[in-house]
Amino acid sequence: MKDKMTLILFSGDLDKAIAGFNLATAAASMGIEVVIFFTFWGLNIIRKEKKVSRTKGLKKKLFGIINKGGVNNLPLSRFHMSGIGTKMMKQLMKEMKFPPLAELMKLAKNLGVKFVACTTTMGMMGLTKDDLIPEVDAYAGAATYLANAGQSRINLFL
Amino acid sequence: MKDKMTLILFSGDLDKAIAGFNLATAAASMGIEVVIFFTFWGLNIIRKEKKVSRTKGLKKKLFGIINKGGVNNLPLSRFHMSGIGTKMMKQLMKEMKFPPLAELMKLAKNLGVKFVACTTTMGMMGLTKDDLIPEVDAYAGAATYLANAGQSRINLFL
Amino acid sequence: MKDKMTLILFSGDLDKAIAGFNLATAAASMGIEVVIFFTFWGLNIIRKEKKVSRTKGLKKKLFGIINKGGVNNLPLSRFHMSGIGTKMMKQLMKEMKFPPLAELMKLAKNLGVKFVACTTTMGMMGLTKDDLIPEVDAYAGAATYLANAGQSRINLFL
Repeated sequence: MKDKMTLILFSGDLDKAIAGFNLATAAASMGIEVVIFFTFWGLNIIRKEKKVSRTKGLKKKLFGIINKGGVNNLPLSRFHMSGIGTKMMKQLMKEMKFPPLAELMKLAKNLGVKFVACTTTMGMMGLTKDDLIPEVDAYAGAATYLANAGQSRINLFL
Repeated sequence: MKDKMTLILFSGDLDKAIAGFNLATAAASMGIEVVIFFTFWGLNIIRKEKKVSRTKGLKKKLFGIINKGGVNNLPLSRFHMSGIGTKMMKQLMKEMKFPPLAELMKLAKNLGVKFVACTTTMGMMGLTKDDLIPEVDAYAGAATYLANAGQSRINLFL
Repeated sequence: MKDKMTLILFSGDLDKAIAGFNLATAAASMGIEVVIFFTFWGLNIIRKEKKVSRTKGLKKKLFGIINKGGVNNLPLSRFHMSGIGTKMMKQLMKEMKFPPLAELMKLAKNLGVKFVACTTTMGMMGLTKDDLIPEVDAYAGAATYLANAGQSRINLFL
């Protein structure tokens, strides 16, 4: 088994994403190999801002609009309160000089953390490669996750 | 350590259950032994449809009615919207030829995935063995989970 | 790798906390070393009752008031229903002679389970050491978690 960690980011919640990237950057800076799998709502974290997929089908389009993506549009898992709580938390983080999620993600990339988008759920969410940020390293499914997790000391589902 | 994976399905959310069974079927088809522990709201996934437990006690009965079980009654973790969002997601899955959860569960059983119901939380939820589907392989508590997880390369809590 | 388990309690939900401490006490009584990391809303589990932090700053103070802490103030992840569902669940647990969370936590401490508070998110939540219960064994960040998890057979994120 390698000094390696995998994270599944299933939830698109801002706080869980911060927890995940905080772990990922800490691990990578300690020399641990890190692979993050973005699936379901977690795909929102690696979605381009405001871009609505041009996929055919009314339902997919509707879902794409309701389910806002982009690192700056993620809600808190608690006290989102139509955005007021989330805004307050972001201001608190700023006052405390804690880096915003977008910066944590940049840092993670610079430290060699791999970003993998789940192809199975991309379809379900009506997302194409064009909807995701260019920092994504690979597009893959459960088999790739399992191959990576089987080699890793730490595997978490967030 | 064995080529084995355990999943705890704590949440009874449709999307998390799909994520879990997607991983479970992929793993089992790769020859990985898989054990799924259903606990708390996750017990709803293996509850018979519409059956309300005949357990004594008003509170247990009330809880059994509010907390709907059965694979076709699970809400999404996000955008359930009184059922509208969940229905839309199911239709999207159908259009994309993605198997519904009930089929993923059947596939999992056929591939040898083990279903374990948590006895401790069955009591809390007012559920008896009679309320659960016959596909359950075992009824057990935390000690059984820990024995299985201690042998497994991958352990996730969903 | 040691016979060791780490849990990250991220969510401050009562049901997830019960699931975590149920696993922790079972593991500890089987001779497994257990370390629990409390982060984000999970810090509410180890907050003193009703104590509102005297930290400066209106936003932090507001957040401290909205985000109630203390083992007796935790909501359910589902059917909290402004407290009615949570109260009902607590009564069900009592009727079934299932120990309340506060007792599970005491048992865990007696069995040697280690409580670690995440310093990074304590700041974000406007919490100081003075806001947390004296049972906390250590205050640390991601590096400490990773060092512990890297040695453990079982690592879960709740």
